[in-house]
Amino acid sequence: MARLNFTDNSFLLAESRETPMHTGGVSLYRYPRGVDQHEFLSDLRNILLGGKELRPMFNQRLANNLLSKANLFHSWETDRALDIEYHIRHSALPQPGRYRELFALISRLHGTLLDRNRPLWELHLIEGLAGNQFATYLKTHHCMLDGVASMHLANSMLSKTSRGRVNYSPLSLEAWEHYKQQTQAPNRGTAISPEDVKSLAERLAGQLGSGTQLVRALLQYANVWIGGNTALNAPWHAVPRSIISSNVSGSRRFVAQSWPFERVRAVGRALGGTLNDAVLAMCAGGLHHYLAQSSALPSKPLKAMVPISLRVSNDLDSSNAVGFIVTNLATHLDDPEQRFRTIKESMQAGKELYSGLSPGEAELFTQITVSPILVSKLLGLEKTLPAFNLVISNVPGPRKKMYWNGALLKGIYPASIVGNGQSLNITLVSYADQLDFGIIACRRSLPSIQRLIDCLEDSLCELEQLASVA
Amino acid sequence: MARLNFTDNSFLLAESRETPMHTGGVSLYRYPRGVDQHEFLSDLRNILLGGKELRPMFNQRLANNLLSKANLFHSWETDRALDIEYHIRHSALPQPGRYRELFALISRLHGTLLDRNRPLWELHLIEGLAGNQFATYLKTHHCMLDGVASMHLANSMLSKTSRGRVNYSPLSLEAWEHYKQQTQAPNRGTAISPEDVKSLAERLAGQLGSGTQLVRALLQYANVWIGGNTALNAPWHAVPRSIISSNVSGSRRFVAQSWPFERVRAVGRALGGTLNDAVLAMCAGGLHHYLAQSSALPSKPLKAMVPISLRVSNDLDSSNAVGFIVTNLATHLDDPEQRFRTIKESMQAGKELYSGLSPGEAELFTQITVSPILVSKLLGLEKTLPAFNLVISNVPGPRKKMYWNGALLKGIYPASIVGNGQSLNITLVSYADQLDFGIIACRRSLPSIQRLIDCLEDSLCELEQLASVA
Repeated sequence: MARLNFTDNSFLLAESRETPMHTGGVSLYRYPRGVDQHEFLSDLRNILLGGKELRPMFNQRLANNLLSKANLFHSWETDRALDIEYHIRHSALPQPGRYRELFALISRLHGTLLDRNRPLWELHLIEGLAGNQFATYLKTHHCMLDGVASMHLANSMLSKTSRGRVNYSPLSLEAWEHYKQQTQAPNRGTAISPEDVKSLAERLAGQLGSGTQLVRALLQYANVWIGGNTALNAPWHAVPRSIISSNVSGSRRFVAQSWPFERVRAVGRALGGTLNDAVLAMCAGGLHHYLAQSSALPSKPLKAMVPISLRVSNDLDSSNAVGFIVTNLATHLDDPEQRFRTIKESMQAGKELYSGLSPGEAELFTQITVSPILVSKLLGLEKTLPAFNLVISNVPGPRKKMYWNGALLKGIYPASIVGNGQSLNITLVSYADQLDFGIIACRRSLPSIQRLIDCLEDSLCELEQLASVA
Repeated sequence: MARLNFTDNSFLLAESRETPMHTGGVSLYRYPRGVDQHEFLSDLRNILLGGKELRPMFNQRLANNLLSKANLFHSWETDRALDIEYHIRHSALPQPGRYRELFALISRLHGTLLDRNRPLWELHLIEGLAGNQFATYLKTHHCMLDGVASMHLANSMLSKTSRGRVNYSPLSLEAWEHYKQQTQAPNRGTAISPEDVKSLAERLAGQLGSGTQLVRALLQYANVWIGGNTALNAPWHAVPRSIISSNVSGSRRFVAQSWPFERVRAVGRALGGTLNDAVLAMCAGGLHHYLAQSSALPSKPLKAMVPISLRVSNDLDSSNAVGFIVTNLATHLDDPEQRFRTIKESMQAGKELYSGLSPGEAELFTQITVSPILVSKLLGLEKTLPAFNLVISNVPGPRKKMYWNGALLKGIYPASIVGNGQSLNITLVSYADQLDFGIIACRRSLPSIQRLIDCLEDSLCELEQLASVA
């Protein structure tokens, strides 16, 4: 029985009916030409149902003991009575099966809690999508899998050619071992090892003495709070209120859209920033327009929490390995150029914080700065004392077009987590030549979030004009 | 802002992710001949979406105040931002759209919690069912609607002829007022009036002095507990353990089946009992076989809680008006005749308890005897100290074949509530010439509950042989 580490455990502690802590991934596929669609989907389903021994975490459930009942510390145990038909679900869209019907279904599926008596995942095969397409929706608790880990999972079932066939379940131990061999990543290779299971307090006491880089990073945050640094942004510092800062209900709205990778990268290059700077500027402009149209644009800039991966490239096993930069989105400014510049400086300042830290120190720094977020969640203070306004997360996906047993993967759209005080989340995946945006919002706080898609396109056009690349 | 009465409120207090307190109703319809099915369903959906002002409780949500946050006492308030598209849901079955796929969908839908930030109901229109059929699934929290009240709701949208058309939403205030006029029931007419909002303690103090019938009924229960009465069964008294007595997970399995009303009634008549005695004997035999096949038949008889309606016939407004009889199912006996006799005597003894009570006294008696169930739920003692083994509930439905805008209602199958220590619920509706059984079970405690359907048929055949009516 393995105790969950601090971060993984915190996703369980902070969960309620209104704030489920699972993430989702919607994948769109095109049926191969000439196949019997019903038969093709049945075959995929049988492959998924056929996995005898499942890969780690997909076969584990939360142990039922006193600490877990009190929702304090959770441990994993193997589910000896795993009921695969409960987890692999066959669903369908009503006619006419447009993206609209798909988004409605995903919104509903994403708005319900997983059953804590079972392994914390569900995989839906969805038929009835127009245009010779079908979809999958994978729902996994954040305590068992983060965004990068789910990309590894997706990769392990996909092939780079339409002729590739994988006849074992992508969730099977077999598939997992095979994928690990292929990517030549024998096991986790970071500095974070048995330390994980120690409490945060113990780790702090042991490391703060020698961890001078760590202390430097913490002092820089302190400097922001007392007003001594303007480019760096720290959590809780100058976070404006907006309609995004509401307490959330238990219902969601999901929308998704792809943009050509090249359009966004060209903007970043022309303006002297990174792809991620351009993504953030596109989101900042989109939010500027969306909030202005709703007469709800705050006079101070929104702050986004931008996760950065701390995962060492050959670490496939740890479930969460994430650092965080708080970025000034400059949403109060009308000028896209000024917005872009502010975002770029803000991201640079944030990255410098992490630059001198070892992987272990970086994880510790994240825990020290993020753990108050958990405390404020447990005290119900997120709305009164928000650490930031929303999460914008950019997850690297497959670089080439991929296929699942001959079916082309057309896009991967993440559905992430919203919470009290942060009723919106924008997560995108870079896949082949496109950027796939998945937007999840509290349905009650932000009722017409589908408008944000148009606002994002408008924002990208403005940036293209600015960069003279349009 | 109206405070919920004691019973309604208790359904909210006892709710958790593992034990949702909503009930569901699955209705099967046959499309009228010659219609465009997609268009027909779209029209029904538009009628449902078109209701401007909704009928009481469907437009009310739980007020968000300190007492409700602490989950102590809840009040209703009108939801001024009601989002009808959230509640009216268009769903579909995957191919081949058999009852099997329908039951899988209902099992999933029934296993998730309603959003407490909104009115506590969802209505699903389900397409893709084979045999020219479609289905609806109405999910309502038990604190807003009991079984009889949902039958009134169903009635208000149905017509007795295939030519009848109802062009306003059955959930609209308009439909409700119209139905109340038709059934000539101006308002609730029982003795339970402003008393409802007083606490149970206050009511006890005020009534116990003069309530001699009430005291007599309570003394009879006390007599059972000390062993002085053998025909009457009281909650907590001699309740055996079985696989049904498990603590439940958050996942469900739903199955349903219709039996001809006449077959069951003939058994009851021939054996000198009521229809309900025959229903209970059929269930007892079914459980006997099901548990014996699983090598899990307890040596002592299972005790069923059988709700009886305390609703005065013209009271359409109160949400819950239910009394309870604990019945000895005699499942340990092999002989169907002995089982039938025991059940009949046990039901008679239970009914005599309620016979001398006024409606107000009967409700008070129910609260006094049922409120410890709530306390034991809150203390997590249901499994250790069960009040009974399962609920078997018989709800009267429409007596004639009904139609929804020309579509024949083929059956109404209830999906009720299971809880810790009671992982199975059998609820049936009498509709026209059939009895529609809906069975809901914890998917983890009773994994192959579909076998119970065959066991019920076997049990009915045995009873028919016994009654020589087969």
